[in-house]
Amino acid sequence: MGHRAAIVGAGHTRFGVLDAGPRALLRSAVDGAFASVDRGAERRRVGEAFLATLGFGGWQIGNASAVLDEEAGLVGVPTTRVENACASGGFALRAAVRALEEGRTDLVLVAGVEKMTDLRAPRRRYWLGVSGDTEWERLAGLTFAGVYGLIAADYVHRYPSARDALAEVAVKNHENGSRNPNAHFQKRVVREDVLRASRVADPLGLYDCCPVSDGAAALLLARADIAREFTDTPVYVDGLGAGSDRLAVQERPDLTRFRATSRAAEEAFRDAGLGRDRVDLLEVHDCFTIAELLALEDLGFAVPGGAIALTLSGATRAGGALPVNPDGGLKAKGHPIGATGVSQAYEIFLQLRASAGARQVPGSETALAHNVGGAGATATVTLFTRG
Amino acid sequence: MGHRAAIVGAGHTRFGVLDAGPRALLRSAVDGAFASVDRGAERRRVGEAFLATLGFGGWQIGNASAVLDEEAGLVGVPTTRVENACASGGFALRAAVRALEEGRTDLVLVAGVEKMTDLRAPRRRYWLGVSGDTEWERLAGLTFAGVYGLIAADYVHRYPSARDALAEVAVKNHENGSRNPNAHFQKRVVREDVLRASRVADPLGLYDCCPVSDGAAALLLARADIAREFTDTPVYVDGLGAGSDRLAVQERPDLTRFRATSRAAEEAFRDAGLGRDRVDLLEVHDCFTIAELLALEDLGFAVPGGAIALTLSGATRAGGALPVNPDGGLKAKGHPIGATGVSQAYEIFLQLRASAGARQVPGSETALAHNVGGAGATATVTLFTRG
Repeated sequence: MGHRAAIVGAGHTRFGVLDAGPRALLRSAVDGAFASVDRGAERRRVGEAFLATLGFGGWQIGNASAVLDEEAGLVGVPTTRVENACASGGFALRAAVRALEEGRTDLVLVAGVEKMTDLRAPRRRYWLGVSGDTEWERLAGLTFAGVYGLIAADYVHRYPSARDALAEVAVKNHENGSRNPNAHFQKRVVREDVLRASRVADPLGLYDCCPVSDGAAALLLARADIAREFTDTPVYVDGLGAGSDRLAVQERPDLTRFRATSRAAEEAFRDAGLGRDRVDLLEVHDCFTIAELLALEDLGFAVPGGAIALTLSGATRAGGALPVNPDGGLKAKGHPIGATGVSQAYEIFLQLRASAGARQVPGSETALAHNVGGAGATATVTLFTRG
Repeated sequence: MGHRAAIVGAGHTRFGVLDAGPRALLRSAVDGAFASVDRGAERRRVGEAFLATLGFGGWQIGNASAVLDEEAGLVGVPTTRVENACASGGFALRAAVRALEEGRTDLVLVAGVEKMTDLRAPRRRYWLGVSGDTEWERLAGLTFAGVYGLIAADYVHRYPSARDALAEVAVKNHENGSRNPNAHFQKRVVREDVLRASRVADPLGLYDCCPVSDGAAALLLARADIAREFTDTPVYVDGLGAGSDRLAVQERPDLTRFRATSRAAEEAFRDAGLGRDRVDLLEVHDCFTIAELLALEDLGFAVPGGAIALTLSGATRAGGALPVNPDGGLKAKGHPIGATGVSQAYEIFLQLRASAGARQVPGSETALAHNVGGAGATATVTLFTRG
C-alpha cells in the first residue's frame, strides 16, 4: 500500500511534575525534534503545524495553536488545534499526514502538550472530567477512575483471573518506565505492592491508575517521497485508522469493548495492507491497567478475555514476543493529555530506529500506536514501519 | 486547477438568543443539511465528521466531537474537534476537504456550534477573552472590543474618512441582515444611529460590534467526482488557504494589517488558479466594522486605506459590483464562534445556487469566505465556484 508519510525527527520533555509552563514545554519538545533530524531540517520547509492539547486548566482555551507557531519559530504558517481529549495526539498526527499528502509542503510539525499539576484537587477533578460525558456522567459525580473502575469490575466479574493480569500490567509498565529517563515514574513495583495499594475505584488501586503529569512531545513529519533527504532511517506512517463511540458508557452494549478502537484498528490495517502478525511492538492507551487488556482485545491481538493469558504469559514484556508499552505506557511514563498520542509515536520512532537505549526492543520493524479519547468515545490506531 | 470537493447540502439554525442547547442546535443544523440534499444522502455514506466549537461556557470541553456523532446519527465514524477560536469553522472545512481527498469516503460532515447567551457577564467576558493572547492581553484586561478599538483608532488616525466607512459597514450589514430570516438582528439602522450609539471601545460604538449569539450550521461535503450523484447544483471548493500570526497584537509590526489573512488569500488563489477579478461575492469576518475594511485590504481587493472608498462607493452593498456579507455578516447575522466559518459557507452554498431568497445576489459564480481566529492570529480563506 506504500508509505503515507515519514517521521524524520522527534522530541520529548520529561513527563512528571515540572516547573515549566506550556510554552516552555512546547519549545523544548519542538527544539528537540528539530535537533534530532539527522541531516537537519530548516524551519522554512515546515508548511503547517498541528497542536494537540486539552488546554488543561484553561491556559489558552482558544487559538492555542498560534502559541505553538510562536514557540516553534513558525509564525505565519497555518496551524490548527486538534482536540479529541486524550486522543488529541493521535488525531493530530492523522491530520498532519493528510496535510503532507496535499503535496504543498515538505514538512509538518505535530506537537502535544499538557500542564496539569499546577491545579489543586477540585479544579483538577473538573478538568479531568470534561472529556467524558458531561450530562450523565461528570455532573452525576462519575470520575474517569470511576468509569474505568466499572469497566474493570465487569471484566473481573466475567474473568476472575483478570485481577492478576491487571497487576502484571502495572508491574510490567513500571519496570519499563524504570528504563525510560523521560518517565514520570521510574520506580519498579512488585505484584504485592499493586494488590495491597489503597483502592481508587474498586477493583482498581493506586498502581492501576496513570498519574497526572506535565509534559510535551513533538514530531517532524516529511512527505514520504522526500524523507531520505532528512535521514537514512525515517519511520514511515503506513496506516491510519480512527473511530468513535457514544460518550457515556451507559449507552454502549458492552462495557468491556471499545468499539472505537476496533473500528480504528480495522481501518488502519486495511489502509496499511498489513496483518496483525507483522506487528512487532505496541504502544497502547493504558490510562488504567484495565485499558491495556481491553486494547489488546479490541485491537485484535487477543479474543475477549484472552488478554489475560497473553499478559500473564510474559509475552507483552519488553523481552516477550509482543512487547507492549516499552516506554512505560501512560501508567508509568505519565499522561499529559494532549502529549500522549504524540509521545507514543516518539517512542516508536526511537524503537524502530534502534535508538531507544536501555529500553530498546531488539529487531522491531513494524509498530502500532493506539490512542483513546475519554473512556473510548474516540480512538486512533496508527501503523508504522522502519524505513 | 480543478475542484477539490463539493458542498451538496447545508443546514443552519436561527442565530440569536435561543432556548436550545448545543446538542439540539447541532441536531437541527445537521438534520437541515441532510434534508437539503436534492437527491438525498444516506448517513451510511458519511465516513467522517468534524466539529468546530470553542466549547463556550465549558459545555463539553473535551471530546465534544463525539457529541456531534451522537446528534448526527453517525456513532462509529471518526470525528474530530477542530478549534481555532472564531476561525474554527474555516479550519474544520479545510480538514474536511482533505479527508475527502483521501478517497476513502463519499461524504464528510462539518458542523459548527456555539451556545453563548446563557452565561452572565463576568463568565461571558472570560470565555470571550480566551481566544486572544492570555498573558499580555486578557490577563491585563484587554477585551476583544478593546483590541479592535485600538486597531480602529490606528486606522482612523491614518485615514480620517474611515469613520464614515465604518458606519457604512454597519448600515449595509444591518440592511442585509434584515433580509435574512436566520439573522440575529433583522433591524435596519441609519448612519446617525451608528455614529450616535454609545461607545464600546472608541472609535467603535455599539453598532460597530457583532452580537453574542447562539447558533449552529452544518455542511455535507462530497468528493468532487461524485458530487452530481447528490445534486445537479453542487458548490465546489476550489481553493484552500490558511495562515497565522502572533497572538498578541503588540507583537506585530502593523496593527492595521492581518498577515494571516494575506497569507491565506495568496494560498487560496494560487490553489484555485483564480484571480481576484473572478470573485463575485465575499463573506468576510466582520466581528467589528473595522474588520470588514481590513479584510478587503488584506484579501487584496483594495490597497491599504482603499477599503474606505470601496465601501463608501456602495460597491459592497448587495446590489453593488462586489457584494460583501449579503447574509448580514457577523455584524448583523450574529457570531456564534464555532458556527461562523461554517455559516459563511452555508451562505455561499445558497447564493451560488441562486436560492438565497430575498437576499439573493444575482449571477454569482465564484465566492470567497474569510474566517479569522482571535484578532488575526489564525485565518482561513476558501474559494468556491458554482457547479
